Amino acid sequence: MLAEIPATTKIVPVGKRCGVHSMTQDEINAVLVREVRQGGLIVRLKGGDPGVFGRLGEEMDHLAAHGIPFEVVPGVTAATAAGADAAFPLTHRGKAASVTFLTGHCADGSDQNWKAHVETGATLCLYMGAKALPSVATKLIAAGAQADLPIRLLSKVSQEGSSDVLTTLTDLASGKVDVSVLPTPLIAVVGAVVAPPRHAGLMGRIAAFA
Amino acid sequence: MLAEIPATTKIVPVGKRCGVHSMTQDEINAVLVREVRQGGLIVRLKGGDPGVFGRLGEEMDHLAAHGIPFEVVPGVTAATAAGADAAFPLTHRGKAASVTFLTGHCADGSDQNWKAHVETGATLCLYMGAKALPSVATKLIAAGAQADLPIRLLSKVSQEGSSDVLTTLTDLASGKVDVSVLPTPLIAVVGAVVAPPRHAGLMGRIAAFA
Repeated sequence: MLAEIPATTKIVPVGKRCGVHSMTQDEINAVLVREVRQGGLIVRLKGGDPGVFGRLGEEMDHLAAHGIPFEVVPGVTAATAAGADAAFPLTHRGKAASVTFLTGHCADGSDQNWKAHVETGATLCLYMGAKALPSVATKLIAAGAQADLPIRLLSKVSQEGSSDVLTTLTDLASGKVDVSVLPTPLIAVVGAVVAPPRHAGLMGRIAAFA
Repeated sequence: MLAEIPATTKIVPVGKRCGVHSMTQDEINAVLVREVRQGGLIVRLKGGDPGVFGRLGEEMDHLAAHGIPFEVVPGVTAATAAGADAAFPLTHRGKAASVTFLTGHCADGSDQNWKAHVETGATLCLYMGAKALPSVATKLIAAGAQADLPIRLLSKVSQEGSSDVLTTLTDLASGKVDVSVLPTPLIAVVGAVVAPPRHAGLMGRIAAFA
């Protein structure tokens, strides 16, 4: 998508992956208002879906406070892209009647209610760094999750250099998986739907869509 | 998207909205295999994301059992499209650290664990018919949800004739909202993130994207 931006378009990098110092959310908000005031249409481009851990609420609030009209274009969030790439559904009749996207902890610093998350029976899609995963696996088992529940660690979904590790909560909790080598960004998906990778031999880019 | 299909492409309608008798999943699976065997590339087009209540698992299993290679292209699921259209995020720092997509009940006929779903604090996106909503609102309140928790009923998201009703669990449970008049398809989103519709005056299609 970046390659399709016309050369005449002004680009203001604000994210972590542009090789520049990341801006704070306040700084990004200020850039949005500044650029709009200079005239023209501006696009705030994000990876994934802006409404899922994308600070969409904060940016809309800021624009609204300044009377700036906007449109939100939805996107494909990392969990659904991961399922498409690795050929597993996020829900499946008889295996998961719900799917949850969650972070490691809440904004007030409190932990997620892991027990409640386990009891829903939902496929859990963990939007968090690799470092946190072994302790989350430990918490899920303590909260009543089956120790041998499969968890799939998908790095760089839909990008060059993607990787896909299938393990279990207990192996992740015990340190058998070296999470320090996993490329970022990473999404981890826990639940019966992620295993086995039945369709591995049949998957791949079909030329007509490449 | 349908309008962009070349006139030379064979189209086999299988869904409810094509004005024909809906096929069962078994019949759809059989059509997929039959068409592949006649040669060429076939596209199984679905609304939303195929991995979220889209029977993706069943269709992949069937293709795999017949040795048919495939690629899954992810999509924008109804809940994220609803948030984009109505200007609310599905997660928000301090309001919701998780979001769950769920149906009314599980494949084995058992009910969702509504108490666990309430206790997660997740924004709940209900993929179910309007008729079921009052009883689900009653169950959520019985499970410990705040009676005045906002719920937003969004019909025909991203389509002509969309509608958007903001109410509360208690008003929905008590029958104050006439769900029988809501157009389908419908998605209902419960949680602090959906209200108030702060940005109503600023939202709308921006011409450059139309």
